[in-house]
Order: sequence, then C-alpha cells, then structure tokens
Amino acid sequence: MRNLVVLSILFTFSLQAQESDSVIIRKFFNEELTKGKSYGLLDHLANNIGGRLSGSPQAAQAVDWGKRTMDFLGFDKVWLQEVMVPHWVRGDKEQAKIISSKEKTEVRICALGNSIGTGSKGITANVIEVKSFKELEILGKKKIEGKIVFFNRALDPTNIGTGSAYGGAVDQRGSGVVEAAKYGAIGVVVRSMTLTMDDHPHTGGTWYKDSITKIPACAISTIGATKLSESIKLDPETKFYFKQTCEMLPDEKSYNVIGEIRGSQYPEEIIVVGGHLDCWDICDGASDDGTGIVQSIEALRLFKVLGIRPKRTIRAVLYMNEENGARGGEKYAEVAATLHENHIAAIESDGGGFTPRSFGVDNENAIAKMQPWVELLKQYGIMEIKKGWGGVDIGPLKKSGSVMIGYTCDSQRYFDYHHSEIDTFDKVNKRELELGTGCIASLLWLISEYGL
Amino acid sequence: MRNLVVLSILFTFSLQAQESDSVIIRKFFNEELTKGKSYGLLDHLANNIGGRLSGSPQAAQAVDWGKRTMDFLGFDKVWLQEVMVPHWVRGDKEQAKIISSKEKTEVRICALGNSIGTGSKGITANVIEVKSFKELEILGKKKIEGKIVFFNRALDPTNIGTGSAYGGAVDQRGSGVVEAAKYGAIGVVVRSMTLTMDDHPHTGGTWYKDSITKIPACAISTIGATKLSESIKLDPETKFYFKQTCEMLPDEKSYNVIGEIRGSQYPEEIIVVGGHLDCWDICDGASDDGTGIVQSIEALRLFKVLGIRPKRTIRAVLYMNEENGARGGEKYAEVAATLHENHIAAIESDGGGFTPRSFGVDNENAIAKMQPWVELLKQYGIMEIKKGWGGVDIGPLKKSGSVMIGYTCDSQRYFDYHHSEIDTFDKVNKRELELGTGCIASLLWLISEYGL
Repeated sequence: MRNLVVLSILFTFSLQAQESDSVIIRKFFNEELTKGKSYGLLDHLANNIGGRLSGSPQAAQAVDWGKRTMDFLGFDKVWLQEVMVPHWVRGDKEQAKIISSKEKTEVRICALGNSIGTGSKGITANVIEVKSFKELEILGKKKIEGKIVFFNRALDPTNIGTGSAYGGAVDQRGSGVVEAAKYGAIGVVVRSMTLTMDDHPHTGGTWYKDSITKIPACAISTIGATKLSESIKLDPETKFYFKQTCEMLPDEKSYNVIGEIRGSQYPEEIIVVGGHLDCWDICDGASDDGTGIVQSIEALRLFKVLGIRPKRTIRAVLYMNEENGARGGEKYAEVAATLHENHIAAIESDGGGFTPRSFGVDNENAIAKMQPWVELLKQYGIMEIKKGWGGVDIGPLKKSGSVMIGYTCDSQRYFDYHHSEIDTFDKVNKRELELGTGCIASLLWLISEYGL
Repeated sequence: MRNLVVLSILFTFSLQAQESDSVIIRKFFNEELTKGKSYGLLDHLANNIGGRLSGSPQAAQAVDWGKRTMDFLGFDKVWLQEVMVPHWVRGDKEQAKIISSKEKTEVRICALGNSIGTGSKGITANVIEVKSFKELEILGKKKIEGKIVFFNRALDPTNIGTGSAYGGAVDQRGSGVVEAAKYGAIGVVVRSMTLTMDDHPHTGGTWYKDSITKIPACAISTIGATKLSESIKLDPETKFYFKQTCEMLPDEKSYNVIGEIRGSQYPEEIIVVGGHLDCWDICDGASDDGTGIVQSIEALRLFKVLGIRPKRTIRAVLYMNEENGARGGEKYAEVAATLHENHIAAIESDGGGFTPRSFGVDNENAIAKMQPWVELLKQYGIMEIKKGWGGVDIGPLKKSGSVMIGYTCDSQRYFDYHHSEIDTFDKVNKRELELGTGCIASLLWLISEYGL
C-alpha cells in the first residue's frame, strides 16, 4: 500500500512535470513559428555575408555579425574567443579538360580545400581510375607513378541515411592525396561527394601528411566524373588536365563567438549548443552550417524573449574553422578545461535545417534518462532519442565528460547542396528550420531543468 | 511447459517471418534507390503533359500515358474505367486591382476552380474583410449586400502538421461563395491557402449550392492579401476589381486508369493503391498529385521487376477528377460494389513526394495488427502506423468495409506549392520520392502476405 502511495505521488509529480514542460515547449514553438528570427538571421548570414572560409574577410564579418547579433539580443554575456586558423585561398577559377585521342572536353571542377596549386601551367597526365585505396595497392607504383589518380567510388544510394553514405565515400576526398602520392601520383581528382547527378563540383577538406609528398587535388562534378570514366573506358590513354592556383597562407587570427544565459540554480553547469560559423568559399553556407548557427542563437533568444530562465547555464557557441581545421572546437574545449568549466552536455546542429527527426546521443545513461522526453517532442518531429554522434566541433569536449548530442534532421537533401555552389538560402525551408530551432530550444530546456 | 513450447514456436515463426519480410523490403528499396522509375515517370507527367484538369486535352493525354505505361510494364491486367467528369475552363488570364482613394494596385489572383466568370467588364465593388462565416452573420445583409467579401483568415502557423492548418482555413475557399452570397455579396476573394508569404495565388475547388445565387470567386496571393487588408485599414472605402472569364462546360467523358497484379493465393482479396491523375491547370501537378500517381505505378513495378508475387491482388488506381468533383473515386467504388469485389484495404498517396513519416489508418483493429510492421519500416522513415485519414479518392470504398490508409510524408513544404504555379517537378527530391515508393510497396507486400 505504501509503495502504491509513493508510486502514485511519483506518477502525479511526473505528470505535472511533463505538463508544465509541454507548456514551456509549446511556447517555444508558438513564438518561433509566428515571430521567429531564424530565417531572417540566415538570410543575412547567407546572402549578405556569404562564403566565409576561415581567414577570409567574410569570416571576419561573420564573427562581427555574430557578436553584434547576440549583444543586440541581450544575452547575459557575449564574448569572442581568439583562435588561430588556417588561411587557405582558392585563387583563380579552376580549369579542367578531359583529353582523349578524339576530343577535348571541358569539365567543371573545384580545388579541394587545403590543396596545393598546380602551378600556372596546370598538370596534364594520364588518368588511372580507382574506387578504393586497396586498388591503389594492387596497381602499385609502376602503374600509378606520374599519373593523375581519379577516385570514382560513388556514395551508396541504398544507404537510407545520407550521412552514412557520405561516410562511406569521403575517405577518397580526405586521404586520397596521401594514398595516391605514396605510389608516385602527381595529382588527384575526386568524384563529388553527392548522391545527385549534376554539374556542381563539391569541395571539402583534404589532408596532407608531412612525410608524404603533397600533390594537388580537385573535385569533379558527378556528370564530369561520369564523362571522365567513360572516356577512360573508350580510350585508356585519356589524359586529364587541371589548373588551380589555390594556396595555403600563414595562419590568421580569428574567433569563436560565444553568448550565454546564466542558469538560475546551477550556473556552473553549462549546456552548449553550437554550429560552425565558417563555410566553404564557393557557396553561401546556408545549410552548412548557417542553419546550425542561427538555430543556436535563436534557441537562446527564445528563452530570453519568453522570459524563461534556465536552471543551468545555456551557451551558444559559433565555432570557427570546422571546415578545414576544426581549430575552433579544439580551442573551446582547451579553454573550458583550463577554466575547469563543467559542461554537462553539448548539442551540435550541423546537418542542415531540414525537418526534425531525432537526437543522437553518445551516452547510454543519458539516453535512458532522456527517453521520457521523446513523448514531449514527438508532435514536433523528434521521434527518437538514440545512440548517435554529436559532431566535429563539440567533439573535443567529450574528454571532459560532457554528453555529446547531435541534432538529426531529415538528411535526404543535405548532400545535394553540401560544399557546392548551390548551398544557398533558397534551399532552406522556413518552417523546417524553425521546427529545428524549437526542438533544440526544448532540449536545452529539459536538460537545464533536469540535468543529465 | 506446453504453452512455453507453443510460444517458442510462435516466436520462432514470427522471427522468421520478420526476417524474410525484411529481406523483401530491402529488395524494394535497393531496386528503387538504384534503378527506380518514379522520378523519370514524374518528369514525363509533370513536364511533358503538365496541367491536366478534368476534361482537358492534357487529362486525356495523362489517361493515355497511364495506360500505356502500365501496359508496357507488363502488369497482369490494365484497363480504363469510364467516368463522366466536370469540365471547367479558366479562360483568359485573370486580372485584379486594389482601388483606394489614393492609388490603383495590380495584384495577382486566379479564379477558384468551378467558379463562374465575372463577365467581360469584371466586377468592381467595395470590399468587406472577414475571417470567419460567423463574422458574416454578425455583419448581416445590410453591410454585405453589393460588396465583395474578402476572406482573409490565414493558415495557423503554430499547427505543426500543415494539413491540419490547411483544414482549419479551407472552408473559406470551399464554402465562402455560398456563405457570402447568402448575404447578398456579389463576389468573393480568398487569401491563398498557404503558410508562405509570396506572390503566387493558389487555386482550388469552390462549391456552389443550387439554392444560393452563384457569385464569382478568386484566390489572391498572400502578398496581395496583405496589401488588400492594409488598403482597407487605411481606406475603408477601398474597392476591389477582378475579371475572370472561367466557365463550367458540359460534363466530359474521362477515365480512371487501373492496373493490377493478381494475387497467387487469394486473388479475390484486393489491395488498392492510388493517387489522382488530374491536377489544376495552372501548375504541373508534380506534388499534387503526380507523386502519388508515379508511386502507385512504381510500387507495382517493383513487385514485377523483382519477381515477387503477392498472395493477394494489388491494384494501382489512377483516379480522375479528385480536384473539382471526386467523380473518379466515386465511380471506382460504385463499380467495385456492383462487381461484389472484396477490397480489404486501400492506400492513398496525395500529400506529396516528401520523406516518409507514417501511415494513417482509419481502423483500430488494423492498426493493432500493423504495429509489428513499424519495426520493419522504421529504418526507411515510417516511424508510426497510427489513427489517421485515408484520402478523398479511396474514401467511397470505406462503406464496403475496406481499411483506409493514408501515406503520410513530411508535410512542411506541401502547401508552399499546392494548387499554385510553383507545383513543378523541380520541387520534388528524387530520393524522398523513391523512399515513399519503397514504403508503399513494402506495405502492399505486408498486407498481401498477412491480410488485415
């Protein structure tokens, strides 16, 4: 009987808690869907600032805009955190041709980020097409030396999660330069990391190793990749020509931009929400990661404008340099460790501003604690809180014990735009973006109320 | 002990069934995501045929295309089912102006489907803005007679499901002409049924009553609606002018297009999947409802091409005339009743080709039976099988006892395009469309295997 009473009290308490949580959460969504600022903020960041690669004038503008915006919104504290970042510049518009015995065909490419240039004359060489590093090993130095290696393994379309399809192909872009150079290749061309068939090359970071000769690398559009592959089939002596004048300059000073609302009861317990402020130079970075930036700022604004005080401190971090160095995320965690800050959880939004689907969490205990929240969030699109990955920028916080949480929205369209010239504002749907903001604000609320 | 053995056998059986189902389902998705025809079929229907309102030459082309396509795909039986449909024509491009004491402003409108015309001189009259039929009642004949009624109740943006937001506003478009005419109004202008703020008027059916005077009705874009409302606030004597030469012609002969694959064990038990072949004249009807059409055809093709024989008969029905009469759905059910056909379930896809979210089912017993299937479909996006609505075209089958099932995909973008000139092919994402096809084929398989 006594247990029954206790149970009944617990149940009533839990019901009340859920009811009041659901009211708070409804307020977030009502405000966001009627008077939300996510879309307007994104419009400015994508259309007025645009491409903002680390070290660029636009990146500096974005830092300035981020700080001014959070100052204007009246967060309790807004500050810049200095971080030295790589400064890679693309140079002139890249050029490329497929040269077979029959014809020369111009194709669309772009240099991979961090790549060296080709010199002003460009590079022309026979092409060897492979789909894996294993193939390189089998072919060996004799067949690869002096050639351009063409990595043409497509993303697997049967993979329902496009992030997973991307993960299964992106080694070609990231490490292809090192693997090809080991066998004496003089250049690399990589099929664009997208599931669509179109003529937009997709850039992205490539990573050299100090011990291996640096060779230039570019991405070719999927249409171009198909043409190149067909040309090689028809004429094994097909040559590829590409010219790019990109180069790595000395590191530049830049900043993470941070704003916070102090917790009323446990201010020393911090919950971070963030995205990355930098983006590739060839796009507006609307979906990667303008949406994460505006959702992070806007989630805090919702607390502010609705007069909802979190028990724990909530902090928006606009990380610099995710794309070609991840220095911002490392710096943030380093400073947090130095200051002995207690980050109980970190949420990252870096998968676009599409309709909410789930939160991915790296910690089983936290997942168990969060399960009752799914019922609160289902009507807004969050159908699951499950095992998953946080993100690149929050990653370095993991070693301090922070729970890593990734906001997971619908992934089908993300890689259509990702790192290409069509990652623009018009690809983002206002309501889908706002729903994401509402879900993130709601999760911040729940964690700030109940801890993890 | 014996019970335990039985339970264990049941469990093993159920596990095996699930395993083999999951293999079949995976086959559907692999085929569709690598060699699917949904997108190509939609390209033809939207771009080569385009707007295909009942009675139009394009509707006849669509019927012809539907039959040829299913014949070509080698379904067991393909046939046309005659149905007489309304034949409404838009006439010349509509014109409209807001006329205040200060200025005349041209605004974008389109006639509502089924509306009468205004005569060649158009209509000019003072405007009275209302947000509900209740307001009309309060204003009464004295204040409404001789005026144009402007219905300006917006869709509620705080409604997470946009279908529900649409449902909360569409009475203005459907019945506004009758309600306004009761009080002597001479015309109606309705705010477009969309959550976006843009300059595309959205058409849609309006419905007269024989006993009430017919007055002409048009839709105004949301930007136009805002201008008109502001003008009325500044100058209560604001007039509205609109001219439209649309008219209802005599009924035309048209067809539902039907294709089926016969069941191997229970051929007399039929499972229908369908969408509507007609669409509004001012758009390409890509999302409304080209996507439902191609998903229905393609779901059957997947069985055919993979050599998967359903136990029960599966039938794709391309209904004619959903938009301004729903005669195709009625005819289909009428013929089915006459032939004493046994339709155990009917699935409708008429919410666009966006990412899968759930199936809505009208029958609690069926929902209970279908619950184990959620686990099979989750990885493909179907997170719930729950209480919901089937659709307009399958609706008349309900009285014969058929379970009504609606394919529910993400709804955020649907009403941005719906019934407007921007419902075009480019708004449909190939993978999102294909995932829907896969989910529908999978559900057909499960129902054909296990019944309902």
